[in-house]
Formats: sequence, structure tokens, C-alpha cells
Amino acid sequence: MTIREQAANMKLSSFKMASLSIEVRNHALRAVADALISNMDKIIIENEKDLRKAQEDGLSNSVIKRLKFNEEKINGVVTGINDLIQLPDPLFEEQMKRELDSDLLLIRESCPIGVIGVIFESRPDAMVQIAALCIKSGNCAILKGGSEAMNTNREVFHIIYEAALSAGLPESCMFQIEAREDISEILKCDESVDLLIPRGSNAFVQYIMSNTKIPVMGHADGICHIYADKNLDMDKAVRVIIDSKTQYTSVCNATETLLVHRDIAEELLPVLNQKFKEKMVEVRGTQDVAKIIDCEEATEEDFKTEYLDLIISVKIVDNIEEAVMHINKYGSHHTDCIITEDKEACQYFMQNVDSAGVYNNCSTRFADGYRYGFGAEVGISTGKLHARGPVGLSGLCTYKYKMFGNGNIVDDYQTGKRQFHFKDL
Amino acid sequence: MTIREQAANMKLSSFKMASLSIEVRNHALRAVADALISNMDKIIIENEKDLRKAQEDGLSNSVIKRLKFNEEKINGVVTGINDLIQLPDPLFEEQMKRELDSDLLLIRESCPIGVIGVIFESRPDAMVQIAALCIKSGNCAILKGGSEAMNTNREVFHIIYEAALSAGLPESCMFQIEAREDISEILKCDESVDLLIPRGSNAFVQYIMSNTKIPVMGHADGICHIYADKNLDMDKAVRVIIDSKTQYTSVCNATETLLVHRDIAEELLPVLNQKFKEKMVEVRGTQDVAKIIDCEEATEEDFKTEYLDLIISVKIVDNIEEAVMHINKYGSHHTDCIITEDKEACQYFMQNVDSAGVYNNCSTRFADGYRYGFGAEVGISTGKLHARGPVGLSGLCTYKYKMFGNGNIVDDYQTGKRQFHFKDL
Repeated sequence: MTIREQAANMKLSSFKMASLSIEVRNHALRAVADALISNMDKIIIENEKDLRKAQEDGLSNSVIKRLKFNEEKINGVVTGINDLIQLPDPLFEEQMKRELDSDLLLIRESCPIGVIGVIFESRPDAMVQIAALCIKSGNCAILKGGSEAMNTNREVFHIIYEAALSAGLPESCMFQIEAREDISEILKCDESVDLLIPRGSNAFVQYIMSNTKIPVMGHADGICHIYADKNLDMDKAVRVIIDSKTQYTSVCNATETLLVHRDIAEELLPVLNQKFKEKMVEVRGTQDVAKIIDCEEATEEDFKTEYLDLIISVKIVDNIEEAVMHINKYGSHHTDCIITEDKEACQYFMQNVDSAGVYNNCSTRFADGYRYGFGAEVGISTGKLHARGPVGLSGLCTYKYKMFGNGNIVDDYQTGKRQFHFKDL
Repeated sequence: MTIREQAANMKLSSFKMASLSIEVRNHALRAVADALISNMDKIIIENEKDLRKAQEDGLSNSVIKRLKFNEEKINGVVTGINDLIQLPDPLFEEQMKRELDSDLLLIRESCPIGVIGVIFESRPDAMVQIAALCIKSGNCAILKGGSEAMNTNREVFHIIYEAALSAGLPESCMFQIEAREDISEILKCDESVDLLIPRGSNAFVQYIMSNTKIPVMGHADGICHIYADKNLDMDKAVRVIIDSKTQYTSVCNATETLLVHRDIAEELLPVLNQKFKEKMVEVRGTQDVAKIIDCEEATEEDFKTEYLDLIISVKIVDNIEEAVMHINKYGSHHTDCIITEDKEACQYFMQNVDSAGVYNNCSTRFADGYRYGFGAEVGISTGKLHARGPVGLSGLCTYKYKMFGNGNIVDDYQTGKRQFHFKDL
């Protein structure tokens, strides 16, 4: 079967998938979790092949770290599946129930999006999380993982798929593609595929968006900011800034730029700089900053850069308005934080910063589906439409309007013979 | 100022607009309603210019009918604004409030999308409805109406804008563009404009989608179906089919195709055909249909066509599965109806038809924001993402996640020093 035929078959299956009860979907998740545990040895053998190849190819440590799928990580994703099973059913939810007239009832009910294609990096845990989220939300999934994890992905997909089938899911509930060329085939399947979720670099997401008619939920750059306001708690500021920058640098929710209120700069920057040195963080500051601490010079380009590395750009601002303007101009609308004890400043910041996540006194690294209690995430959306921030089950659902009548016609209402009475039930 | 500068200014204003209380927004709506009433004469004078021009240019009666903006229609839109004032505030709504830990609170709160560009047909009432929906939902609006209504639109926009400003809305809360060339300028403003809503032909919507990076909420074809099941009430069937086809033919929620179960065809079609003749509806049927009633021959092209006219394509199907397959293949995922008294068939249809609206025993013409109790609509979305079906206030909103901490860092949770406890408040 060609990719296009597989996708068309999947589209037909998607209606069966959407009809499955939560019992069947949770049962399938349990089967997947059990199968991952009982096949752990096989997975680890395949993963070691990928790890060997990665080392031979001289891939970076951070890639190898993500690629690794050992007992601890497998147990981790199984815990994630068990958490997901506990979450309420995102489907068949009556989001609205309105009597339009005595014999005319309108219901808005949640339903799956249908067929979702997810293209993700070389992280075998992502394969499990995405497949599990799609099963729970009644969506069919086309999965394309990074090629560095090919052996692991093939084994993991096989285990998930067989377990799902044995638990009663339809045959076309999911399929895997492996070759890069197959991505361009998927991009053409706008009659069968309802949504694409590409994860990866901004350039890659832009490439997908420009080459398909299928709607794309982009997980693009993460240029996250922390603004240290004048009325702050020094200890909180240092803790949060260091965690946001250094806890895990190669991820989108790590902070890239620090904005400091002029009134606090001379007090905060030296203390921070000491910590940055301990953590090997390179500071790139504006001239104002360089007068206070020793640092590299920041250019405008720095403020547009997602370093994903132990580098931070630092700028001094005169007031909160300037900080907010900077964030809205240079940021990527992902997650931005204000460190302040001043409630009014906090409110101003949260109201005016145009980002999916606006935080007060906590690390930007919290921007994550698991940490929000969503069980897992298929990505973090920096767009404003449909879903924003970490995308879990609700972001994988849409709704339909069901209307139940008794021979009702519009002409009766247009001519005044009958009147709507709109009563929410 | 260039269009681009105007849009950039609007983007800055959009945060002010988003902060306005519901009292200010409702006050502005009241001011707009009052201004429309007190300036009614001026509007009618300008509208008469457009009507004269339309007649000189030989525009069709249906266009002229939509273009007309007389006392009755102005009173109609003012009633609409008053209904909108009564609706609850779509903003600042806590959609989720979750304690992640004792000192870490996550809130998901609704907020406006920001800057919305709406391109709509030559209907002055659309200008009023769209502007009013944007004011209520705290969005800034770029409005481009059809050129046939230029004089009316200019006057109506002026009245709305002045009233909104006098009621405290920011200067850049809305602007109008008139020239066709200005549309291509707007398409380039992806840094300032958050969403485009083009209304019009499928080809026009496709053109917009292919020429901008701005997300587009498309209001495309409406190929709506009625499936007459074997277990139906003849009276309801005839009433609903005739209303769906003839009540107003040039709109997207009019029915274009009728599917009839073979077991009921010989009973239903002759009765229907009599009514179709009375209403001057041309029937294009498959060969099976032609054996029962006198009709034109339907080709496959007919089933893909949005007639927007007194024409209906008719096909006989062997069972409900075939009907559903036909609708999912040829339909536009807008609104489709089953006429049946059989609850199981109804449920099967509603579950498996992949459309924004799935109806039982009522006219497809009900697919409309006003009739759903949304006050008005900016369009009807046939996409599955973000908003589906008639788009009212909630479709013009997005959300942001606000997180309130106390110096919380991810490292504490990663290393097991602290644990999340996820408690919905």
C-alpha cells in the first residue's frame, strides 16, 4: 500500500476510533503499558544498536542522552501511561446543551480531530507519549520519529501497535513512517490527514507549513524571558533565573534573555554573575550591563536567538513597560516570567505579555504538559489558535454541534410563526 | 501611515483592548447601537448611492438584496447588538485553576486573539455584526467589506468607530480598508495580525490561505446534505427538505444534495418532486432516481457542486453506511442532516458524519450563529481546528496560562526534593 492509501484507510478507521468507549481506550493503554514492561529487554537491545551507531557517527552528548531508552526511561513512560489512564475522558463531553425551542435541542460535544501526523525528534519516549495521547483522545496517528532512533522506534512501535490491536483498536489506528521522503507524501494527504504536529527547529516547522494544505500546529522557537522587576526577592530571583537557564539548556522552555530593572541591576547582577560563573554560563550583556559585571557584548541578534546552550543575553530596562515591549517584540510567545513581589506589576506583566505562559516567581522550565498535570504533551504550541502552550488531550480534540429536531424549519422562525427561546440546560 | 504601520499600531493597542472591563466593552456596544439609530438617515442616504450604482452596473437581485441597508435591517442589527450586550463576558474566564503544589498555582484564562482581519462580502449588516463581536471579545479589527457597499460601509464604519472611541476604546481598536490592493498589504502583516477570517467563495479563501503566513479561519464551501432514512416521518421529511433547499438558496447552509434510502424512495420522491416543481427547484438525479421521477441526469460533478441556486442533486443509497460515506467524501464538513425516527440510525449518522453540524429532523438552514444563540457570527468554520461551525464570541478568544509561584524551580521536582500534587480548585 502507498502512504496515500494507508492514510485514506486510516481516515475511514478514524470514525471507528472516535466511537470507542473510554473503557476500550483505557484498556488499550493498559495493554500498551504491560507490553512495554514485558518487552523491555527487546527494546533495550534495539536501543543499544541506535546508541552504538550514534557514537560511531559522533553525535553530540545531548542527542545521545535523549536517544537513550533504558529501564529507568521505560519505567518513566509507563508511569506516564498509567497517569494518562487516570485522566477523565476528553471525548463525548457536552460542552454546551441549549434548548433553542421546545422541540429543538443543540448540543456541542467534544470529539477527536481524526487523523494526526506527528513528526518528532530522536526520542523514543516521545513515540510512546504521542501514541498514548492519541489512543486516549481517540485519534489515529501517523508517527515519524527521528532516524537516529530507527531501531528503537521500530521495536517500540511494533509493541505498541500489537498491544493496541489486541485490546480492540481498529487496524488502521496508527502507522509508522521511517523514510524522510515519506514525509513529503504525508504533506500531500490533505484529504485524509486533519492535523500535522511537527516538532523540531523553527526552520523545519516553517518548511512543513509552507509545503502542505494540512493545518499545522507548530512547536517553534522558545525564546523565553525573565524580567527581574525592581521589587523582588533576591533569593527567589537567583534561584528561578539559574534554574530557568541551566536546569536543562537544550529545551524550548529554557530562558534565553534576562531583563533587569535599572533600580535593582547593581544589586542583582553581581550576585547572579557569580552563580553564572559557577554554572559555566556565558553572559552577553548590553553596555549598561558591562558597566556592572564583566561580560561579552550583546547585539540585537542575541535577543532574537534561541541559544539552547549555556549562554544568556542580559539587558537593563528603565521600567516594566520597556520589558514588556521587548518581550512582545523579540520573544516567541512561549513562556515569560516576571520576578516581583509587587502584585500590580505582576498583573500588568501577565495582562500585557502576549505569550502562552506568563509566570510570576517560578522557573520557565515548568512550561510542560506533564508539569501542568496533562499526563504528557504532543508539543508546545506558540500559535494562538486552537491550542496554546503545552498541548495535551484537550488540544487533540475538537467538537461537533449535534441538533435534534422534530421537523423544525427556518422559515417558521424567519416569518415570526415561531420564536427561539435559548435556554441552557 | 501605511497599512503596515497601522497594523503595528493596532498590535500595540490590542493589549489595552484586552484589558478593558466588560462594563467598558458593553458601554461601547451601547454607544454603537445608539449611534446607528440616531444616524439612520445618513446611512440610508449612503446606501441608496450604492444601490443606484449596483442597479446601473446590472448586479443580480440577490446581491442587491444583501446590499440593501434600510430601516428594518438597521433595526435588526441594533437588536443584534443589544442581544450581544446581554451575553456573558467571554474574557477573563478561568477555564482551569490547578494547584500544582502548595505554593504553585496554574490558571488558564480566556483572552482575546488580538488583531483580527475580516474580509467580507457586500453586506453592511456584516460590518456591524463583525465590529460588535470584536468589541465584545476585546479584539482589534481590520475590516474590509465588499466594494459594492463602499459608501454604506464608509458611513457605517465612521459611526461605529466614533461611538466606540467616545465610549473609551483605544484609537487603534479598529480600522477599515477599502482598496483591493490593501488586502495584499494585510497578508504581509504576519507580525501584527493574529488571524484572518475571509468570507466568500472557496477560491477566494484558498487564495488567502496560499498567500499569507497569518493563520486563516476559512469559511469555505457549504455542500450540505440531507439523508432521508427508511424510517422517517413523511411530513417532517418534506418540510425539512423543502426549507433546507428553498428557504434561502444563496447561502452556505442551504442543502445541495439529497440522499434517499432505497426502501423509501418510491414513496418519498414523487411527493417531494411535486413540491420541488411548485418551488421551481431543478432536480438532478442518478439513473435510479430518474426511474421514479422526471429529472435531469446527475453527474459526479454535481455531487461536488455548491449550487447556491434552485437546483438539488438526488441519489438513492442502499443503506445508511453508503449515505455517510457519500457525505464524508463529497461534503464540505459544514452541516448535514438525517431525517429518521430511528434513534440508532440517528446516533450512527451523528457519530460517523465528519461535519461541524450533524442534525436530526431539522433544516440545515439552522446552522447560523444567531440561531445557535451566539448573538451573531463572524463566519462558519468548516475547518476542525480552533473553532467549528458558526463562530461567535468564543471562537474569537484564545487563552493564556498564568502561573504564580514562590521561587519554585524545576530542579526540586526533577531531583525528587518536591512533588507535584495536582489539585483542581
